[in-house]
Amino acid sequence: MLRICLNIIKGEPVDIEELGEFGLIERIKGSFKSRDRRLLQGIGDDTAALSTAGDKVTLLTTDLLLEGIHFDLRLNSPYYLGRKTLAVNLSDIAAMGGIPQYFLLSLGIPRHYPVEFFSEFFRGLKELSRDYRVSLIGGDTSASAGKLTISITVLGEVHRAQMIGRAGAAVGNQIFVTGTLGDSLLGLKILQDSGNPVQSLRKFPRVVLKHLDPRPRIKEGRLIAEKGLATAMIDLSDGLLADLSHLTREIGLGARLWREKLPLSNYYRRNILSFEKDRWNLALAGGEDYELLFTVDRAKVEPLKCLSSRFDCRLTHIGEVVKGKEGLKVVDEKGRPHKINLSGYDHFRTQVTF
Amino acid sequence: MLRICLNIIKGEPVDIEELGEFGLIERIKGSFKSRDRRLLQGIGDDTAALSTAGDKVTLLTTDLLLEGIHFDLRLNSPYYLGRKTLAVNLSDIAAMGGIPQYFLLSLGIPRHYPVEFFSEFFRGLKELSRDYRVSLIGGDTSASAGKLTISITVLGEVHRAQMIGRAGAAVGNQIFVTGTLGDSLLGLKILQDSGNPVQSLRKFPRVVLKHLDPRPRIKEGRLIAEKGLATAMIDLSDGLLADLSHLTREIGLGARLWREKLPLSNYYRRNILSFEKDRWNLALAGGEDYELLFTVDRAKVEPLKCLSSRFDCRLTHIGEVVKGKEGLKVVDEKGRPHKINLSGYDHFRTQVTF
Repeated sequence: MLRICLNIIKGEPVDIEELGEFGLIERIKGSFKSRDRRLLQGIGDDTAALSTAGDKVTLLTTDLLLEGIHFDLRLNSPYYLGRKTLAVNLSDIAAMGGIPQYFLLSLGIPRHYPVEFFSEFFRGLKELSRDYRVSLIGGDTSASAGKLTISITVLGEVHRAQMIGRAGAAVGNQIFVTGTLGDSLLGLKILQDSGNPVQSLRKFPRVVLKHLDPRPRIKEGRLIAEKGLATAMIDLSDGLLADLSHLTREIGLGARLWREKLPLSNYYRRNILSFEKDRWNLALAGGEDYELLFTVDRAKVEPLKCLSSRFDCRLTHIGEVVKGKEGLKVVDEKGRPHKINLSGYDHFRTQVTF
Repeated sequence: MLRICLNIIKGEPVDIEELGEFGLIERIKGSFKSRDRRLLQGIGDDTAALSTAGDKVTLLTTDLLLEGIHFDLRLNSPYYLGRKTLAVNLSDIAAMGGIPQYFLLSLGIPRHYPVEFFSEFFRGLKELSRDYRVSLIGGDTSASAGKLTISITVLGEVHRAQMIGRAGAAVGNQIFVTGTLGDSLLGLKILQDSGNPVQSLRKFPRVVLKHLDPRPRIKEGRLIAEKGLATAMIDLSDGLLADLSHLTREIGLGARLWREKLPLSNYYRRNILSFEKDRWNLALAGGEDYELLFTVDRAKVEPLKCLSSRFDCRLTHIGEVVKGKEGLKVVDEKGRPHKINLSGYDHFRTQVTF
């Protein structure tokens, strides 16, 4: 949040350089600076944060989901789209250590859209909202002269002392991640290759569901926040390296990641080479895993490991924060640098977060 | 808010009946009922309202603005679009008697969009946000595979005792409206007829600006709220009759409007017959005036009239609330019913608010 997400879909380059020249990011950041005292965090974190009475903080996050950019209805079902629409916003609240409470939903609906679509969309949305105890409190629904447009705003809360921002990491902090890496993009590739969501789901349920139906790590984020175990946290929406750079490079720090420690699912290990030449690329750069990536003071590593028995997913120690001049490195089991070759990833997604 | 706004643009019918059968409204309302204690107002008012500490209420409203539905860039400038984008959301806060504080902005940007567009869009947005002292605190920006998409969420505040909902009117209450009626749609018609925004603005600045650059009645809404003068209030986005029916018909009441009292601008009086056969239609059914429509207990009519000297616009006493069985009537100077002939309006906009 506030993210410039210039997705580039197959054969459709976005004129990002032109936008770069224009300096849209700098323009927004510069001209909308706020000196409001209640505003603990504005543009530049997973959510905005406003102090409220009783040492509470109100968290606010919004996402736009556009057909043809963020989802492809040939590869997705309206049911899963309804779930994911809300899930990706809850994940931003999880990354602050917060509790999601309410949401607003806006829909721009193309003419003659199949009515069954909404029946299924709302079934999925409703289920996820029940699972995470968030209430729909308003929104706006309109016809669309273009494609299906979805906008969600989520409001959550966290105790001020428990809020985890992006900017708190320090040299020597240890880097942890929940769940597994790269499965979501692998699931998308399987869907794109087969063109058949039902068949893909049946054959490869784990990774395909990881893409279609991500589970926001609210519970894990809350546990980490309550115990004060993280110095900084972010959710993995843009890929491990991109999101890690928000926690490190953006505040002048570097990071060392241990390649062999990256948590890969069994399915990923067995099948990645059918889809990618480099077995590490999706784990390092695949987006939309919606896991939590966070940094931890050395002294808190053991308490964290104990706490992780209460997580619904695995927790993995994948590296450490180093000085800025060392940059962001991935090293193999012998400490040799892993050559990161991400050419070919720009065609999939180019994102600039601010 | 949460509004089903099925705008029908020229020659492009929306299959509203199909959506009607599907019962989208009932589905959303029914399946997302909340029993949350903090939720003072969910789906069905100008904004959602959440009680917070210290007898304060947090107000939340969101609107989707879609190219080809809510705006036409051939008739609008990016500068005015930036202003109006925020203004229409502030108007929802005004209708609750609230103070707007923060906003989130999401943009879906088509490929190769002229970069000057954003320079002008943000100039307008920034100006209006300064005028009304609201801070941009986050958002989401993405490429769009379709048309330009704008989503705004505004967060505001009001003292609980001062909040004005839609459902408080009673038989005998007097009906008031700020500003003038019908000018916005008249301005749009002028723009559509000429196809030349610069020329239209030069020749008919008042009504064209009323359409392009509406001013949310925050100040007036606050004054009315502070003094506790209104029993119910709404902003005029869908047209006088449609919005009045939210304050009356929806809670089983009727209303009598005095036709000759409807506040018309001089420009409207002089020129309406060049654009419409029936001189009253735009005043009764034209949308997007963004004035405040509210009901007042008889005992408070005089205090209200005194207070209105502090308004930036005129205030007009246009009718009264009657029993439900009398329906919603417009009467002429002799008390005879004015025949409302709105055929031809459906083609412009069909809205269902819930």
